[in-house]
Amino acid sequence: MNIIENTRKKCPLVHCITNYVTVNDVANIVLACGASPIMADDKNEVEEMQSICNSLVINIGTLNERTIESMILAGKTANKYNHPVILDPVGVGATKFRNDTVNKLLNEVRFDVIRGNISEIKTLALKSGKTNGVDACEADMITDDSVDEVISFAKKLSKETKAIIAITGPIDVICDESNSYITRNGNKQMGKITGTGCMLTAVIASYVASNIDNKFDATVKAVSAMGLCGELAIKESKGTGSLRVGIIDQMSLLTDEILKEGNKIEIR
Amino acid sequence: MNIIENTRKKCPLVHCITNYVTVNDVANIVLACGASPIMADDKNEVEEMQSICNSLVINIGTLNERTIESMILAGKTANKYNHPVILDPVGVGATKFRNDTVNKLLNEVRFDVIRGNISEIKTLALKSGKTNGVDACEADMITDDSVDEVISFAKKLSKETKAIIAITGPIDVICDESNSYITRNGNKQMGKITGTGCMLTAVIASYVASNIDNKFDATVKAVSAMGLCGELAIKESKGTGSLRVGIIDQMSLLTDEILKEGNKIEIR
Amino acid sequence: MNIIENTRKKCPLVHCITNYVTVNDVANIVLACGASPIMADDKNEVEEMQSICNSLVINIGTLNERTIESMILAGKTANKYNHPVILDPVGVGATKFRNDTVNKLLNEVRFDVIRGNISEIKTLALKSGKTNGVDACEADMITDDSVDEVISFAKKLSKETKAIIAITGPIDVICDESNSYITRNGNKQMGKITGTGCMLTAVIASYVASNIDNKFDATVKAVSAMGLCGELAIKESKGTGSLRVGIIDQMSLLTDEILKEGNKIEIR
Repeated sequence: MNIIENTRKKCPLVHCITNYVTVNDVANIVLACGASPIMADDKNEVEEMQSICNSLVINIGTLNERTIESMILAGKTANKYNHPVILDPVGVGATKFRNDTVNKLLNEVRFDVIRGNISEIKTLALKSGKTNGVDACEADMITDDSVDEVISFAKKLSKETKAIIAITGPIDVICDESNSYITRNGNKQMGKITGTGCMLTAVIASYVASNIDNKFDATVKAVSAMGLCGELAIKESKGTGSLRVGIIDQMSLLTDEILKEGNKIEIR
Repeated sequence: MNIIENTRKKCPLVHCITNYVTVNDVANIVLACGASPIMADDKNEVEEMQSICNSLVINIGTLNERTIESMILAGKTANKYNHPVILDPVGVGATKFRNDTVNKLLNEVRFDVIRGNISEIKTLALKSGKTNGVDACEADMITDDSVDEVISFAKKLSKETKAIIAITGPIDVICDESNSYITRNGNKQMGKITGTGCMLTAVIASYVASNIDNKFDATVKAVSAMGLCGELAIKESKGTGSLRVGIIDQMSLLTDEILKEGNKIEIR
Repeated sequence: MNIIENTRKKCPLVHCITNYVTVNDVANIVLACGASPIMADDKNEVEEMQSICNSLVINIGTLNERTIESMILAGKTANKYNHPVILDPVGVGATKFRNDTVNKLLNEVRFDVIRGNISEIKTLALKSGKTNGVDACEADMITDDSVDEVISFAKKLSKETKAIIAITGPIDVICDESNSYITRNGNKQMGKITGTGCMLTAVIASYVASNIDNKFDATVKAVSAMGLCGELAIKESKGTGSLRVGIIDQMSLLTDEILKEGNKIEIR
């Protein structure tokens, strides 16, 4: 499956309703991976805009009353057209407002993929994760010891939501009801840049939109690709500023061949 | 005409009501080209803010009801003070909301320059352009074969709006009712960075504000300058992340002499 | 006092209600200096979010009616929990809306530090500063001749507000009612990047949150650190684009030792 080549060939339109913190990096990584981003978020146009797009990202990083309504309208439109919808439940667990919003979204929109850090996914799956603001709680971090337990609640969440679940961290877990993979690409410094999670979510939306019959494989490869870009970028970076620039550079150069060589994907 | 030197000397205040995707790059390129940016967008202050500024950018990239009102208030104020106003009709043609907003803006505000990609300008001129989201449609791209036709409808739009029309792409067209130029600076990779169009619009606003008696020349040179910065930056970039950084670097180093040597401006 | 080491060790959560122009750089510099940023700004969650954070930044760069209410709610919550609150009164003096908002904030919220350029602080202290939009007025710039006068009104403002006052420019002044320091780190090119002020404000919030018993020292060191990062970055930068990247790189590498060697802090 040439997931990346397909993305560059089809150049899907990825509609992102996302936070204003990392939105520029999200748009640039969508372009870098071969797709085309659209960031419209006003309720007067999200349905029409989504109708001409190929997938939808809903990221609640800086959610507010105005955009929640738009998220739901766009999500329902995407469902109507069978466009993949990807949820990034940034900071869920941190406030009641975020919890209520995610519940509302899960009730009204059907998601194809949910990507979050371990604390966010734990909150959704077990209604019990602790959060450290928008970052994962240290105590929650996936290790080789805890990975099986994580896979077990991720599968449960997948069963409930019918979505592919992608949990990112030092070890990444990608599950659906019956399959589970882990990937070990990436490096610790990526956590010192804002938006690596948001960017990955948008790469998933790009790959999945271009590989609609292989959503699971596209998701696994997106997770691995993002980590690999971090690994390749760190070699030439001087600090976190140039690492961020380098990740987008590497994504713009990435091919299926490079990913095939560098991926650290394991079936579980 | 030392368009760039004048800009660095006068350091005009450029008021931008723009989208939250590329706003940081817009502010940085305004500084890099010698002007000073102000991004106020609340209706309670846009008139007072515009009154102390030298030009206005209206960019509808992530338009919403709140900022449309501000755009019109700021635009009318700029008109009252004879400050140049530049329109960037991002994604017009993609949704009714964008079309209606641009019509409203064109009815209520007098624009000095309108800059867009070919699909956006075609939508305005012929009420018929197709869009591919916020990017130009491949089929619309200006080629040596189609350039005369493009100039013809750009002149028509200029006549209707009294604005200078700048259309950017592989070949750029700059027209008013009676004059037309093309520029061939730039490189294809610039389309893989979000915001090169938004940035150019703000550079036009900076150059025009500083060269108020030579708005047409200032617009032509801004278009060429932006493309040239892309050409110079690509030589040292590793991918799209560093290309974006490099464009701002090159703009901060640009002089009238460098532009004189590197421009690919042709009169038509 | 190992201000920086403490910050990296404690990794405080810094809640920023800030402008959408420089928000990404603010988040990245907070991470680079060892803290963790959260950008929530909706009135439905700012109180709960602030309750789990360690400090608060209020930056009025792109203020609007929606976020002003959130600023006050978050500010009162921070006061209740004794979390440090830092004000960045961007562009105060430019419009009545900004002046009224800052007055309201000063009346309803107790600030630990106020950081601005000379024109902004003059506006607050003397109700008479001139502004050049969001940048300081050339005529106001602190020189060796004017520094004593500046210290005098900064002390007055500190007495009125009970806040540490930090004024940045070619010479920086940091005062409370009885102490005053100047720092001479930095370089002129930093003024050609948007957001160096906003970033510094967030670094102050990070250092102060981690050194709660030494707020004054933390503020002085943050001001010096930001300038030093600019000095170190300029050596390897080609223009303003790479300077901006380099400042974040340098902040991510900064230690108390590097700051000890490079600081240009003087007691007055």
